[in-house]
Amino acid sequence: MTARQRPSAAQRWVLGVDSGGSGVRLALARLDDDGQPRPPEFTHATNEPVRTGPAGIDAAHLLAQLVPAVRDFAEHGDVVAACVGATGMASLGGDLRDRLPGALRAEFGVHRLALAADAVTAYAGALGMRAGSVVAAGTGLIALGTGLDRSGWRRADGWGQLLGDCGGGAWIGRAGLEAALRAYDGRAGGSAALLARLEAVFGPAPTLPGLLYPRSDRPALLASFAPEVARCAQNDPVAAGILRTAARHILESAAAVRPGPESAEVALTGGLFNIGEPLLGPLREQSPQLLPEARLLMAECDPLHGALRIAAALSYGDLPLPADGALLTTNEAHRSPERAANRCEPRQTGPTGSGISPDPPGKAR
Amino acid sequence: MTARQRPSAAQRWVLGVDSGGSGVRLALARLDDDGQPRPPEFTHATNEPVRTGPAGIDAAHLLAQLVPAVRDFAEHGDVVAACVGATGMASLGGDLRDRLPGALRAEFGVHRLALAADAVTAYAGALGMRAGSVVAAGTGLIALGTGLDRSGWRRADGWGQLLGDCGGGAWIGRAGLEAALRAYDGRAGGSAALLARLEAVFGPAPTLPGLLYPRSDRPALLASFAPEVARCAQNDPVAAGILRTAARHILESAAAVRPGPESAEVALTGGLFNIGEPLLGPLREQSPQLLPEARLLMAECDPLHGALRIAAALSYGDLPLPADGALLTTNEAHRSPERAANRCEPRQTGPTGSGISPDPPGKAR
Repeated sequence: MTARQRPSAAQRWVLGVDSGGSGVRLALARLDDDGQPRPPEFTHATNEPVRTGPAGIDAAHLLAQLVPAVRDFAEHGDVVAACVGATGMASLGGDLRDRLPGALRAEFGVHRLALAADAVTAYAGALGMRAGSVVAAGTGLIALGTGLDRSGWRRADGWGQLLGDCGGGAWIGRAGLEAALRAYDGRAGGSAALLARLEAVFGPAPTLPGLLYPRSDRPALLASFAPEVARCAQNDPVAAGILRTAARHILESAAAVRPGPESAEVALTGGLFNIGEPLLGPLREQSPQLLPEARLLMAECDPLHGALRIAAALSYGDLPLPADGALLTTNEAHRSPERAANRCEPRQTGPTGSGISPDPPGKAR
Repeated sequence: MTARQRPSAAQRWVLGVDSGGSGVRLALARLDDDGQPRPPEFTHATNEPVRTGPAGIDAAHLLAQLVPAVRDFAEHGDVVAACVGATGMASLGGDLRDRLPGALRAEFGVHRLALAADAVTAYAGALGMRAGSVVAAGTGLIALGTGLDRSGWRRADGWGQLLGDCGGGAWIGRAGLEAALRAYDGRAGGSAALLARLEAVFGPAPTLPGLLYPRSDRPALLASFAPEVARCAQNDPVAAGILRTAARHILESAAAVRPGPESAEVALTGGLFNIGEPLLGPLREQSPQLLPEARLLMAECDPLHGALRIAAALSYGDLPLPADGALLTTNEAHRSPERAANRCEPRQTGPTGSGISPDPPGKAR
């Protein structure tokens, strides 16, 4: 790298990484005049989830996927800052925190690096650098909120599928399968419609335990049934009840992390919300009661773009999101929380743009 | 065994076996003049659960525990009939059904053998050979009912801790831990009392996922918290609500397996009911609505005694419980269902004897 020419300002790149259960995604983007990341010019994805070893998430395994992909592009300009978001960063990020700063500096001259829990990159993707609350829901569910002040982050749920993740994909799918099996048994609370979907998807009901319990990805299998629950909800009161309860749990988690009543924005992000109106309708209905004064929004962007936003803010030494030993660490001094403000204008690249429309565009199926 | 003398009639023994998650228990008993098993004169227990292999529950491993223990006593008399009850018999009993009849005939000259799901031995322990319904609940929960007629067995729940076992020990414990973590997060529906118990039992709340998820016996760990929920129920409305819902689920399972409105007896069996009034109270309260006309009883005896009862009935060629390829198989023709009647007088050796007293003996703690 010593033979390279010094790139121009327009060749300053930021690197965002999103490491999760389905693999590693990364993006390289240039910054616009406002210091915001432009649409990425290079993206790369692997379908190899980073291994977890005795020291936690394996930094060497992440680097083995990251470095060759980034190296090609490092010839085009300086990577001035990076943000690596990873599932499990809070509890299993020790090896990443030990090794990534040195490795990325040595490889690409990256001096400014943020290591973030995936919930934090989801937050930054959903709300940018603004105060508020974000519920991130896929198979699981976690809520994060911050007033961008010294009180730091508030967190709710994210306890995993046995202890919580209430209202997430595995929770909804599990509740739907239970209702199907209640119908099979002739117990109260059963749904013949959900039983029909169970049998269509998994085969005869008695075979389901043998399919589910031996698997290591039980939550994913449970979550795969959530769209079936949504599909049944229009005509089946049991399925509709499950989604109404899920919506209540989602709003309860959002309420627990609101930094204050003046923080009006509550953003929803993650694949769960792709099921659309069957869940968004109950969320709108119950929001006035459970989240008074709140404005419910769909996320602006995804967690990978959130990582780019964090890297961009860091490149200016101006990251307003609170530092936190588990959720968000940097190798640069954080900007003082008191100076925090809303400096990032959101880009509208999320699936539905801004607010949840007050009325559904039509009968959801 | 060829050198043995022919034993007298009073030396006719029946063998009962209960193979479950904590090991193998067996008992040998003589029969009284009514053909009922007397109190066992020999019992033996191992703490080695029988292995499950590719062919299901490993018959050789069960025999290795069974044969040496029984051999000592076979010198004292003929084992005229046996019943082996095993957890998983319904789905994993193929190897047992293939090998046990021949092996027990060769070893001890046992010509009459019943192989039963543990729910069936629990039924026979709880109600003897009478028609009715039994809910067996420990870590999990399953309900079985029969009218002793051609319609056979009715079964409800028993789907395991992710899909059902609603109202069982793991279900109650899991609900209690969720309520504790809701309090930790500041979400609605939390219980500070349960959070205090969680921290006393497991340590700081954030460490719980790391304790629970890597274990293979997650249901047992969840169920270990059920007594804590019961302990809190007197003063904590959230804990009381969990037990009220558990009681509803238990009664719903019982209702689903009632062979008919004239089958008044519904017996409760298994370790879960040791938590006493905090659960029995809500069961009594909701029973008139969910199980109209039913008489709720505690089990007369445990599943091991149920196995002895089945072996005794079989020794007379007079087993009224319905044959079922998964739940109950014998190597003798079953008695014709139409002749089924209540020939066994119950012995009162269960923890509380007969009915659930209409009023608690005192304030439960």
